[in-house]
Parts: sequence; structure tokens; C-alpha cells
Amino acid sequence: MSEFHVLLIAGTHGNEINAPWLFEQWSKYPGIINSHGLNISKVIGNPKALKCCKRYISSDLNRSFQNELISNNSIDEYEILRAKELVSTYGLYGISPCHIAIDCHSTTSAMGNSIVVYGRRNADLAIASLLQLRLGLPIYLHEGDKTQKGFLVESWPCGLVVEIGPVPQGLLDISIIQKTMLTLECFIEEIYKIKLGKVHFPKKLIIHRHLRSIDFPRTEDGQITALVHPSLQGSDWLPMSNGTPLFKKLDGSILRYEGNDLPIPVFINEAAYVEKNIAMSLTKREIWDFSNDWKDAIIDLVFNQSFP
Amino acid sequence: MSEFHVLLIAGTHGNEINAPWLFEQWSKYPGIINSHGLNISKVIGNPKALKCCKRYISSDLNRSFQNELISNNSIDEYEILRAKELVSTYGLYGISPCHIAIDCHSTTSAMGNSIVVYGRRNADLAIASLLQLRLGLPIYLHEGDKTQKGFLVESWPCGLVVEIGPVPQGLLDISIIQKTMLTLECFIEEIYKIKLGKVHFPKKLIIHRHLRSIDFPRTEDGQITALVHPSLQGSDWLPMSNGTPLFKKLDGSILRYEGNDLPIPVFINEAAYVEKNIAMSLTKREIWDFSNDWKDAIIDLVFNQSFP
Repeated sequence: MSEFHVLLIAGTHGNEINAPWLFEQWSKYPGIINSHGLNISKVIGNPKALKCCKRYISSDLNRSFQNELISNNSIDEYEILRAKELVSTYGLYGISPCHIAIDCHSTTSAMGNSIVVYGRRNADLAIASLLQLRLGLPIYLHEGDKTQKGFLVESWPCGLVVEIGPVPQGLLDISIIQKTMLTLECFIEEIYKIKLGKVHFPKKLIIHRHLRSIDFPRTEDGQITALVHPSLQGSDWLPMSNGTPLFKKLDGSILRYEGNDLPIPVFINEAAYVEKNIAMSLTKREIWDFSNDWKDAIIDLVFNQSFP
Repeated sequence: MSEFHVLLIAGTHGNEINAPWLFEQWSKYPGIINSHGLNISKVIGNPKALKCCKRYISSDLNRSFQNELISNNSIDEYEILRAKELVSTYGLYGISPCHIAIDCHSTTSAMGNSIVVYGRRNADLAIASLLQLRLGLPIYLHEGDKTQKGFLVESWPCGLVVEIGPVPQGLLDISIIQKTMLTLECFIEEIYKIKLGKVHFPKKLIIHRHLRSIDFPRTEDGQITALVHPSLQGSDWLPMSNGTPLFKKLDGSILRYEGNDLPIPVFINEAAYVEKNIAMSLTKREIWDFSNDWKDAIIDLVFNQSFP
């Protein structure tokens, strides 16, 4: 049986440069993060885009992990080839198989230190629970959005995104790096405690479940006509109510939220999502009972590298 | 004699997208800014870079207005050709000559609503005085820096940069746009008042005179080894003293300012300046007596299109 391996990824988007800088420093000074003897592979997701400080070269790498793309040998787009390369190197059946992938991102939105999980995989929810118990991180559960798929971590049996902001693209910010560091340290410690049989899981998990995304108001030919309202800017994770200002036009007119479901917005005004027609995503805050299936899944993965 | 013309420029850097959006809205809804009957030309500085949301294609357009570059016919770099095109169209001896250029920028630094003037041209200082009297804007006097030259506004007899932040590159932020709007409105009104003979100049001008720039600490091969200290991030325009933390390493060690000259930092951690080896610039706050030469220069320019 192979040994348990962790994959840490930075620079999946080439203009999110803080985690790549952290990885570089960590390679130079291995003592800055204690790896507790874990097998850890660190990799830059999109080195070509990182060099140009661009999100991507041809297409978004973090939407490229779709079977129909990766298995299509006639596609020669850089990011599809890179996705294929990462899976054939670090994937479960790759040269250096890894069992958990942690993908480190940053955002221009005021997300703070947060975690994104994709769908409801047991092992993902176990790790998310451990990180939330330790650090109180909010967790965004991205699911049921057919327009956004092919996320990197989905190609591993367990995987999460660490999402930290606000920080401009292409800007080194030590407070963003320290938050990334804290989350990675905490993740490594929790895996280590699982290996020692000393881990404690919480009784509840608070998640922010994806409901839907909202685009900017646009003209018929796609021009944006109103911008995120100043009072909403930076208000990620804070519930909206009926009448909350959403967008503002230059003539002063305001578009307001209509509905009584008190959604919680995330990724408000993320610069990279304009092209995806997302001005923000709305979520519902839910408190879930911790499930022993989650615990069993992560323990199986760590000890036996087995998974559903 | 030709008539007095104003040139307003947005998108000189293609990833500073707020002023271009304002220009687009202003073209669609001319009522949002009162032009008071002034002759105003609006132009996108670097349309090709704006389309890609990049600072520039080949080289920084706002360093390309150097006579030896523009007059060299063997250079075919996009930005040099564009600089040449802008001067031959809107320059003093161009097809549609303009006499004042206002170049609208944004920055990732917390500069607020500010003005940059290059050197000590009388008409520039007159306009800066009027804007400061009206809006209280801080003014950064960039001079004596041989490594940074070829700024767009220097190719017009009078010209200033409007510099507003913090905002990530590539992000639309209505509060940034409203600050840009306010400054342009105020500029137009002051020119209008000059034309009416009803302008009032202040008695003093407060400027922040450029002293020098500081680079990030780097290894011999140019790798950045320490980042702007969290307590300094966002502290543009606030005096530093001996011992003020400048940079922080991931091991927690801090590099501090040494000196008793109480410099005032600007452009702290501007994302685009990393490649220029500038982590911040230091200035000295000075209070200058308003000079009648400044007033005479702007009045001459507005009424007679004459200048030194």
C-alpha cells in the first residue's frame, strides 16, 4: 500500500502571488512551517501564468479539471495540458500520487480567511470541520452551479480551497501570507493528530451553502451599467435583507435586493469573476450535525488511502 | 489664435479600469459631469492594454513620453507609437491641440484622492493649488528622480495626474469612480471660473516633495525577501519616524526606518511598482507661498494659449 501524501498547490491563478511567495520562502527556510513529518508535495499550479502575473494563459486552470477536457487529446490549450500534467503527476494514479489537495487562492473580495468546498464529499467536510473548529473559518459550500465546474481539488479524493482576501491581484501582502500560513499549519497539524489518533472533531459544522450568483446590471451588449454599492463592498459573510443596496449607478440610483430569505453574499466584486458574469454569490447559512461518515472517510484516507 | 482645449485621459494603464468606465458612462450620459461649455477631448490612453486589462503591452505608456523615444522612428513598440500618436493628435502642435492634460489613474496604495505633479511648472502648481483649496487633496511633487521619466502630462504645457486608491487593478469600484468624478468636476469648474474671471487662489500650497524611493529587501538575484510591514500598509501620507517598521520577514524579523527626518511615505506597496524596484516613495511635506507667477501662467494658458 502506498503512503499517505498531501499536495499543496499555489498559483493556480497566476496573479494570486501570495501563496507562491510563501512556498518559495518555505522551500528556502523549511523551518517556517512545521510539516510534522508528513509527505508533502508543493507545486505551482500555473507557472506560466504566474510568470506573466496573469490569471491564466488560455483558459482558467481552476475550471479545466473536467474529464471531457483532460481526456480529449485534440485539445492543446496550455491550461488543459497543465491540468492533465498535474493529474498524471500528483493524481491518485499518477507518478507521485497524493491523497489530499489543498489549493491556496487569494481574492479581491473581503472573504477574510475562508475555505471553499465543492459538493459534499465526506473527507472534505471532515477537514473543513477540523479547520473551522481550530480557526473559526467560514466555509463556502459550492454546489449546484452548472456554469462553474472543473475545479482542481475535485480531481483528488479529498481537497479544499483556502481563499483569502481582500488583496489586489499581483500584490504581495504579508497579512494575506500569514493567514495562508496559519491555515496550512493548522491543516498539517490536524492531519498529524489524525495519524496520532488524537484528533477531536466538532459536533456541528456551519456552512454557507451556495444558492445562486448575481451578475452586474448590464446593457444588451454586455456593458456593465451599475457597480457594487459602496455599503455592500467589503460586506462578504454579512446577511442581506429585503431592500439591501446591491448596485449603484453614477446618476445615484440604487438597485436593491428583493426577497425575504436573508441570503449571505460571498465573493462580492471579485475582479476575476466579472468575465464569469458574477458580481457576487449568495449563500444560505446552515448548521449541520457532524457526521461520523465524514470522520470515517478522512481516517480511511489517511491510514489506508482508501476512499469511496 | 486657437481656442483653449482640455484633454482628459483615462486608461493610460490598461488595468486601471475605473476612469475608463467613467468616461464610457459620461459619453453615454453627458449630464453626469457638467462640462460648463469647455472644449474637452476624452481619450483612452492605452486602448490595447485596456482590452487585455494589462498595465501595458510592451512598455509603460506613462514612461514613454521621452523625446528621444518618440522622435526615434526605428522604434516600433506599441506604447512608443501610441505616445507619438497621442502627441501628434492632441499635443500642442497636433491635429486637435489641447493645452491642459489631466491623466486619471488608480493605485493599489491607500493614496485616497490625490494629485501628482511632475516638476515645478507654474501652471501645474496653479491648478494643484485650486484643487487643493477646493478639495483638500494632498499633492505629490515628483521631481529629481532620474530613473522615472517620460510621463504623459509632461508632453503638454500643463498637466496633472489624478491618482486615486486603494483599488485592485482590474476592479470596478464606485467609490473610486466617484472620487475621480469629483476631482474632474472640480477641475472643470475651476477652469470655468478662470474664464469668468471669478477664480480665487489660495495663499499657500502644501506639497509632498519627492525625496527618494525605497525598494523591497531582495536577494542578490532579485528575489524579494521581506514585505511591507502590516502597520505601514495603508499608511500613505502619514509621517514615519526613526524606528517605524518598514518590512517584515516570515520569520517575524522587522526592518525599521532609520533616520530622524520624518519622511512621509506615498505609493506604499503599489502593485505595479514592484518591477520598478519601488516599495514606496518618501516625501517631505512643505508649505509653499502661492506665487503670482503660477496664477499668471494658468491665466495666460486659458486666455491666450501661451506658455513659457
